[in-house]
Order: sequence, then C-alpha cells, then structure tokens
Amino acid sequence: MNPTLNTILSHRSIRKYEDKKIEKDKLESILKAACNGSTMGNMQLYSIIVTEDKEMMQTMAPHHFNQPIATNAPLILTFCADFNRFNKYCAFRGAVSDSYNNIQSYHWAVTDALIAAQNACIAAESLGLGICWLGTITFNVDKFIEILKLPENVIPVACISIGYPAENPPLTDKLPLEAMIHHECYSDYSEEKINRLYKDKEEHPNTKQLLTENDLPNIARIITEKRYVKKDNEYFSQVLSTALKNQKFL
Amino acid sequence: MNPTLNTILSHRSIRKYEDKKIEKDKLESILKAACNGSTMGNMQLYSIIVTEDKEMMQTMAPHHFNQPIATNAPLILTFCADFNRFNKYCAFRGAVSDSYNNIQSYHWAVTDALIAAQNACIAAESLGLGICWLGTITFNVDKFIEILKLPENVIPVACISIGYPAENPPLTDKLPLEAMIHHECYSDYSEEKINRLYKDKEEHPNTKQLLTENDLPNIARIITEKRYVKKDNEYFSQVLSTALKNQKFL
Repeated sequence: MNPTLNTILSHRSIRKYEDKKIEKDKLESILKAACNGSTMGNMQLYSIIVTEDKEMMQTMAPHHFNQPIATNAPLILTFCADFNRFNKYCAFRGAVSDSYNNIQSYHWAVTDALIAAQNACIAAESLGLGICWLGTITFNVDKFIEILKLPENVIPVACISIGYPAENPPLTDKLPLEAMIHHECYSDYSEEKINRLYKDKEEHPNTKQLLTENDLPNIARIITEKRYVKKDNEYFSQVLSTALKNQKFL
Repeated sequence: MNPTLNTILSHRSIRKYEDKKIEKDKLESILKAACNGSTMGNMQLYSIIVTEDKEMMQTMAPHHFNQPIATNAPLILTFCADFNRFNKYCAFRGAVSDSYNNIQSYHWAVTDALIAAQNACIAAESLGLGICWLGTITFNVDKFIEILKLPENVIPVACISIGYPAENPPLTDKLPLEAMIHHECYSDYSEEKINRLYKDKEEHPNTKQLLTENDLPNIARIITEKRYVKKDNEYFSQVLSTALKNQKFL
C-alpha cells in the first residue's frame, strides 16, 4: 500500500492532544495543502480561520457545546464558504457582483470549503498529527459568525481540531464497503439487506458498551433519542436558515 | 516533503484520459479510501454510484452539458448525500425515522459525501490516476436523480471523473495563500488588498489568453458574463431547491 493510502486508511478521530504547539512549517504545509484542492471555476470560494489563541477557543467553546476538543487542541481551523472575496473582486472590476446569492452558488462554496478541509485533515495526518471534526460549527452558526467577525457572503461550514495525539484509539467500526457502493444505479435497502449490512456493527463490542451505557436496545434509538433528536435538529435548522439569509447566501 | 503532501500539492485537474480501464484492485482502493473519512456521528450519510458503463455515461452526458470528461473517462463516481439508508435502519429498529428532513441534517450528509469524494480524489491521484470534478452534477440534479434511480432522502452532491492521464498540464494559477487565510478573526478585503492578491493571477499568461479569447477586460467579467451568469444560477437554484423538497431533505 502506498503511503498516501496508508494515511487515509489509518484515519480515526483523535480527541486527546499533547500540550504542544504545531510548528510554523507544519501549519504552513497544512494550509498550503488545504488551498490546493479543486475549486469551482478556479474561483476559490472559501476562507480558513486559524485559531491558536486560547482565549478565542474559550469564547467559542460553549457554542461547540464545550466538547473537550474545542479547547484542548493547539489548533482549530474553521472553513468558511466565502463569496465575499470574489464578489468584491467583481465589484472592483466593474462586473456584476450579486450573481451568487442563491443556493446553487452556496453549494459551490460549501464544496470548495469542504475539499479544503479534507485536504487539511489528510495533510495533518501525514505529518503525524491527529484531527477531529467539530460538527457543531453549523449548529450555533450565528454565534460563530459573530465571534469570527464574518461579513455577508461568508458562513462557516466545517471545523477541525488538530494536535499531536495523546491517545491511540482503534479504527472506528464502519459499515462494510458494499453498504455505500452502488453500481450504475442506486440499489435500495430491504430489511434483510439492512440486517446484513449492520450485523457486524451491531455485534461490535463498542456497540454493546453504548447500549449498556444508554439503556437502549439499538444504535438507531440512541442516535434518534439521545444524540441528534428531531426537535434539536429542527431548531438548529432554523438557526442555519436564518444565518444563510442574513449572510445573503439565500 | 512527504509523499502524501506531494500528492496533494501536485494536484491539477486532468481532462484527457487514456483509453484504459481502471483495474479492479485500484477501484477497490479508491472506494475504501472514500469510505474511511470522518462522518457525522459515525452515521455514514453518503452513497457512491460507480459508473463504468459507457451507455450510462452517454445518458448522463447531456446533463453534464456534454463536457468531454463526462464520457472520455473510464470511471465516474457520483457522491450522494444519503439519509435513506440510515432512516431505513431506524425504521427497521423501531426508532423515529423522520428526524432528519431538515437543512441541518442535509448539511451533515453533504459534508460526509464531500469528505468521501475528496478522499477518493487523493487516493486516485496517489495511484497515478488523474481526476476532474464535474460541478454540473448539482445543476441538472433532477435528471441525475431520475437516471441513477435515487429514492427520497438521497441527492447527488459531487461527481468526479477518473482515468489514466493523457495530458500533463501545469499547476493551476491560484491566489496566494494569504488571500484565503485569516488569523483569529476574518480580515475583510479593501480594494488595495484585492488588487494586490489578484495581481499575479491577472498577469498570468493563462489570464491574458482568456481575455483575448473572450474579448473582455478581466476574469471577473468573463465569469459573471459568460461562465456562471446570474440568470442561469437562479434557474439552476430553482431546480436544486425543488429537488431538495422532492427528495424530502427540506
């Protein structure tokens, strides 16, 4: 296996970090990698906010629901969908500068930002660092817009913590490859197929432990009743929709 | 520089491919890499449609605006945001199965799918293959849903062509790193700053050639007047919004 595949296939989230700053040259390599991905029409519709200041991390932490990784990492990168820079460039060159306040253009910028984010993750891991995504960045998105001073046409869409690993967890239990892969057309899931695809995951020791801790009979009920509950998802969807309107994306 | 950084920093889009199929073991490595990225709550909210059949490529080509890469690559991967599999799993386990028909959950699934897509790109490039994104996948999204037979709660969000390179283009002209990077807070762009950041790009030989071909004075006007025009963006936003509603994401 080549070293790049090895990096990708060795990935697991790291949530405990050594108390050690990321060296300047490593940070620079990560950022260069982030900014070398594909981008819609070479417009580069993203910005990256580098957080190294511990006070900034503390200010953001409650809106990341005080997850330890929000403050225990030496580095947090927040990836924003950004049409502001490109729109300003258009305005200063006498071109129309309001062509991209719509959901299609928003999707391009989200894509650009996420390509950059995943490049950063792989680059960091290739340098011996550990990473973990903070999915919470889109939940309280209005707070992050305020704290990071994001202007119109900029919105955070991804966030990762990076640091030297202080733990060495096993690989995550995933569904078998065939669960996600379809040849030529989508092949839908019968009950028999779902049972077969989820069998190993449901019998995994991690799962057994989770069920005991939560006193619930399966992962589906843990996720829907404890982790990502309908009313919360609807509330945070309202926050996100409002932010998209306020930031003039929609 | 380590081999992974080298792969990432050597990236450029490849649009001409040799007439040579991707070996089964290479395809398997690409798909394994795609499916080993971070994913929201380990829910794996994506599916990948593998297109190798030339007739399928021909059927999809007009909706990719007949870009050559839509038919001249031996392999096309379409990445879908997919809550269908997880919702079915919930339903078959007696859990609530309609918690995720909202924009927040849609964003999680888009993120999962794009992480998978970028992992696939880097894996392919590490194996000596070339890749190019087809941004068109979200334009005529209704057609792709029909052709790929995607059920409710599944929508394509990314598409890449993969093949052995039959061209060796130079690296793309990008903005300098400082254009995308902000420390602690967002630093907005004055006219002076935009002029400075875009200077090298505007003076690049590629740009000079583009301006001559298009008979326009700058890239901003080429993009806004020829490439991604406001009325088209608004039309394709309508198509995307309708598809998101039809697929029960919103």
